[in-house]
Amino acid sequence: MNFKSDNEAPAHPAVIKALVEANEGFATAYANDRYSKLLDERFSALFETECHVLPVATGTAANCVSLAEISPPWGAVICHRQAHIHNDEGGAPEFYTHGAKLVALDGDNARLNAAEVAAAVDSAGVHGVHNVKPAVVSITQATECGTIYRPEEIGALAEVAHDRGLFLHMDGARFANAVDWLGCRPAEVTWQAGVDVLSFGATKNGAITAEAIVVFGRPDWLEGMERRRKRGGHLLSKMRYVSAQLLAMLEDDLWLKLAGQANQRAAELARGIEQSPDTALEWPVEANEVFMRATPEKLAELKALGFEFHIWPGYTDLARLVCSWSTTKQAVTDLLQALNRT
Amino acid sequence: MNFKSDNEAPAHPAVIKALVEANEGFATAYANDRYSKLLDERFSALFETECHVLPVATGTAANCVSLAEISPPWGAVICHRQAHIHNDEGGAPEFYTHGAKLVALDGDNARLNAAEVAAAVDSAGVHGVHNVKPAVVSITQATECGTIYRPEEIGALAEVAHDRGLFLHMDGARFANAVDWLGCRPAEVTWQAGVDVLSFGATKNGAITAEAIVVFGRPDWLEGMERRRKRGGHLLSKMRYVSAQLLAMLEDDLWLKLAGQANQRAAELARGIEQSPDTALEWPVEANEVFMRATPEKLAELKALGFEFHIWPGYTDLARLVCSWSTTKQAVTDLLQALNRT
Amino acid sequence: MNFKSDNEAPAHPAVIKALVEANEGFATAYANDRYSKLLDERFSALFETECHVLPVATGTAANCVSLAEISPPWGAVICHRQAHIHNDEGGAPEFYTHGAKLVALDGDNARLNAAEVAAAVDSAGVHGVHNVKPAVVSITQATECGTIYRPEEIGALAEVAHDRGLFLHMDGARFANAVDWLGCRPAEVTWQAGVDVLSFGATKNGAITAEAIVVFGRPDWLEGMERRRKRGGHLLSKMRYVSAQLLAMLEDDLWLKLAGQANQRAAELARGIEQSPDTALEWPVEANEVFMRATPEKLAELKALGFEFHIWPGYTDLARLVCSWSTTKQAVTDLLQALNRT
Amino acid sequence: MNFKSDNEAPAHPAVIKALVEANEGFATAYANDRYSKLLDERFSALFETECHVLPVATGTAANCVSLAEISPPWGAVICHRQAHIHNDEGGAPEFYTHGAKLVALDGDNARLNAAEVAAAVDSAGVHGVHNVKPAVVSITQATECGTIYRPEEIGALAEVAHDRGLFLHMDGARFANAVDWLGCRPAEVTWQAGVDVLSFGATKNGAITAEAIVVFGRPDWLEGMERRRKRGGHLLSKMRYVSAQLLAMLEDDLWLKLAGQANQRAAELARGIEQSPDTALEWPVEANEVFMRATPEKLAELKALGFEFHIWPGYTDLARLVCSWSTTKQAVTDLLQALNRT
Repeated sequence: MNFKSDNEAPAHPAVIKALVEANEGFATAYANDRYSKLLDERFSALFETECHVLPVATGTAANCVSLAEISPPWGAVICHRQAHIHNDEGGAPEFYTHGAKLVALDGDNARLNAAEVAAAVDSAGVHGVHNVKPAVVSITQATECGTIYRPEEIGALAEVAHDRGLFLHMDGARFANAVDWLGCRPAEVTWQAGVDVLSFGATKNGAITAEAIVVFGRPDWLEGMERRRKRGGHLLSKMRYVSAQLLAMLEDDLWLKLAGQANQRAAELARGIEQSPDTALEWPVEANEVFMRATPEKLAELKALGFEFHIWPGYTDLARLVCSWSTTKQAVTDLLQALNRT
Repeated sequence: MNFKSDNEAPAHPAVIKALVEANEGFATAYANDRYSKLLDERFSALFETECHVLPVATGTAANCVSLAEISPPWGAVICHRQAHIHNDEGGAPEFYTHGAKLVALDGDNARLNAAEVAAAVDSAGVHGVHNVKPAVVSITQATECGTIYRPEEIGALAEVAHDRGLFLHMDGARFANAVDWLGCRPAEVTWQAGVDVLSFGATKNGAITAEAIVVFGRPDWLEGMERRRKRGGHLLSKMRYVSAQLLAMLEDDLWLKLAGQANQRAAELARGIEQSPDTALEWPVEANEVFMRATPEKLAELKALGFEFHIWPGYTDLARLVCSWSTTKQAVTDLLQALNRT
Repeated sequence: MNFKSDNEAPAHPAVIKALVEANEGFATAYANDRYSKLLDERFSALFETECHVLPVATGTAANCVSLAEISPPWGAVICHRQAHIHNDEGGAPEFYTHGAKLVALDGDNARLNAAEVAAAVDSAGVHGVHNVKPAVVSITQATECGTIYRPEEIGALAEVAHDRGLFLHMDGARFANAVDWLGCRPAEVTWQAGVDVLSFGATKNGAITAEAIVVFGRPDWLEGMERRRKRGGHLLSKMRYVSAQLLAMLEDDLWLKLAGQANQRAAELARGIEQSPDTALEWPVEANEVFMRATPEKLAELKALGFEFHIWPGYTDLARLVCSWSTTKQAVTDLLQALNRT
Repeated sequence: MNFKSDNEAPAHPAVIKALVEANEGFATAYANDRYSKLLDERFSALFETECHVLPVATGTAANCVSLAEISPPWGAVICHRQAHIHNDEGGAPEFYTHGAKLVALDGDNARLNAAEVAAAVDSAGVHGVHNVKPAVVSITQATECGTIYRPEEIGALAEVAHDRGLFLHMDGARFANAVDWLGCRPAEVTWQAGVDVLSFGATKNGAITAEAIVVFGRPDWLEGMERRRKRGGHLLSKMRYVSAQLLAMLEDDLWLKLAGQANQRAAELARGIEQSPDTALEWPVEANEVFMRATPEKLAELKALGFEFHIWPGYTDLARLVCSWSTTKQAVTDLLQALNRT
């Protein structure tokens, strides 16, 4: 039973079906196909505002094309110490931005807070060209620790950023999980709260490989983004297959249903872990990731029983358990029973 | 009827089938799945030598990850003036290599010739650090003009390159078409002729989006290539879907069969164009691309009849007609009839 | 007797004197000293318009900081095949621009001509993001072959560039030699003719190491240029010593007098070479560089007699003879006598 | 009276004299002059081992050319949170390394300690290509806070670094001050302790603008370093003037005498500050920088009296007072008297 990553789950049948359907006949190359051309309209409807969408195959590409457009090479990108862009992309942001500096801050539950960001920005850059220049605040929604920014928290960060001439980027690899948990409209946690550009993730949520850069109200960024996507090798010649996945995810709010399933499983898991005498939750479980404290021995026993999960880097007693749209209720029950049995 | 690009053709059913099958259950992320792990073995069998394979989603990624590994930032990459890396990748090679210079040479039928490459390399770099340093010879097989390097031509280029400390890179976006036309074993036009690294294309040949970097005998390059792939955002979390496509293409030599079909259609088209009084071939038709000279009026008429193709940049009387695995005999017949009718 | 390069000549005593005087007491670091602060005013007076000046230590830094500001990483910089930025800066422009492509054109006497530049720009970039984007036309004044653009030629190039959204950069490593020969005001061959940014060279003309980036009417470029200068390691902490050299060169038009001396010697040399039966001029001698055709034997004899000069790369019978402010009439006479004697 | 920076002090007369002497006659360009050619020998004598030297004009260039050679673009450079490369070079290390990540650690008195570096390196990079790869430990000697690493501390850091495949870089902008204070031979705090490459600073210590990259025992690094220096625009055509400064500094141990004077003044200043009732030292004064705690009012009074110094960024009550070779005993006395008077 796999709790290692939502990246290890299969794609949802509706996504597969959409891809098969997209395979009919010829289609114009390089994102000029009819699927790709629908994206602006469909995402604009979803977000209740005009937005521009660039499909790409990976979250790293989505994040980095965006960051490179909104930070100069001498810029600083403020992010949380747990941020995926800081820890898990092998330096891709530095590569795409031509050397911007990621400035990692602390913050409870893997969330930046506005006051600390303000302080960091205000003290950075005072020496002009001798310093890098704060350019972007980047937040992850849901965070790498499975927690979620509230709209007002995002609003406060946006205000800090915008007041100081910075932009607000959201890494939404698990954006769907956040929106499901918050029960809000997508607009409320993005552009209405001040987000300038969003990496809308679909891969972890049941697609094969599909992410969307969603730009709110800045058409002047598009040329640079399209150039950077091309230079990164991310303008797929047969983009229809990526765009069709995105469209399938939006159809009938599939993206929200799948995230809801994953969140539901994670919540069940969390309740069981809290009730179990030997385990504890490291962070509040708000999305589809559950961080469980347990003795190394207990964790080893679970692994021996066939449960797959990651030990969090730097720890021996902290397991990350991720639920996906395909995680079954039975798998959760089995894990919880095993917890209480071992 | 679409003769615009093999990138506009659908994927072959066997590829779709493989992708659907790969969707069963969980799979380890980031190219550690069982499909990706088979690639070294399968490609080694195909090429009759130990080789190492990195799957990626685009040809640009394949080319650029390779070039960046084998050229320093101050390197020169010798290529033909028609090379895709020089003209059609939006500066991606310069981005990935951190600023290497592409030195474009002439050469009949879009092919570099060894003597001119030798002369170019020998005269470059004589001023040491004041010049860029020749590092790579890059050839496209089949070329951008639909012609094909013979094994002995590649051997001569490899000798020139290796004697001078350069590596030989092959952009094989249409490698299958070349191997089919030559009727040789893949080994003969790659490592046996001196190719150090190959971008093995599958996308144009019937895949959805799948290319393979094939490294011949240089395991020391792998770490850098893997790092560069990651930093480029090309290490797909769900790589199984790319690798499954590649495996499907290799299965029962599907890759050669599909290329053979496309080549066959192109040959039929070429014969008809030669026989038609008002049209001529610009370059020998050896692969699946046909370059046809015709008056702008004639080309306009064909377009008006619903035939889709590109007018070659810089020309008004040169059409590129591309056949893919899915181009029907009927489509070719229709085009030739239209040619003679208009 | 050294005709190898104006880079091998000593600095003029007035420059040394200025540097010694600048050594008095403390001075604010990082170009905030009183010498550096005078530059805008002094250069504005010289060029009869408001201009902004960034002092740097090398011509490569001057060129590359400018090019990086006015070309995006996906830009194309159109230059002559002989251009120093293309051949002699070891890839520095590619480094500073983060991978822009230098597109080298032919053109008589090492000069670009407007029609060919227009044609090149008009045919480049037609495929959008698949191509690099023409961004800059860069010319060298005086050229690498010792020839000089007339104001109207520059005007024509500027019109071609500006009409197409490109900027015009002038590498003026030997700008002084050009202005002396033309007998014009500096304004006439720069901003009045449409030059957007100039690398004003002083090093070759008698300074120790001092160049000025002169920006005409684009204060919005300054922040980026200052950032790039800093990131390149070219914001000298003790910039006063560079700025003092530049001020000394401007004082009483020393820069023009020194260039005039060098040009005069080159003209004398050219006359002698034309009159000598066994030698010929390769290009018109308009500045301080003389390109002399002679048999390899004759060139060898001259070298044996102690005359130092470069054989032009790619040739055996073409010598480059450079005069500097410090080249004596006697040295020229000696060389001409040796020519006729050998 | 200027205590702002040793960068604001004039050059020492012996340096000026050397520069004037170097101005005699012609000299081969681009570091092939007789001054530059002496550097390897002279530095090898100084360091009692064979070393290779690349002269450059700025400390940023020295640091960044080195870091770029010893860290891949996906590398991590471990440094102290106070490091000049991290805070004060405007992102130049990221630029030259093509995007390496600077990982800043804490450590008492601005010094890294071996155990924390070991822990940081051991926990970084465990996720392979998903992480950046620790490649370099960089220390500043003397540190940005005026403290000094003991040879055994450097040895411990070198052991940590080398055991894990990292290199040890020393930013020696104030290396002379460290050697003077330690009273050791230069070898003891460099290669004998495990330093792989040193930025040997002369500018702050009485030169005009001259720094030396000193490479210990790695001739294979030279080509890359020379290429990077050129591409950075730091291969001065008239390098003789930089090299002559370096030679002058080495002559009769001028570099140590000048650092000794500066250190002596700083020590006097420190004693006075300790004895003054209203002021305190922030860090031990071991080199030529004195960090003084005092009320903002007191600092304002000192400024009003004409004493120039920097308030440390992020503080209102911390002044940095820097002594240079040219700081007079009288200036120190005046400052101390003012302290006690106000």
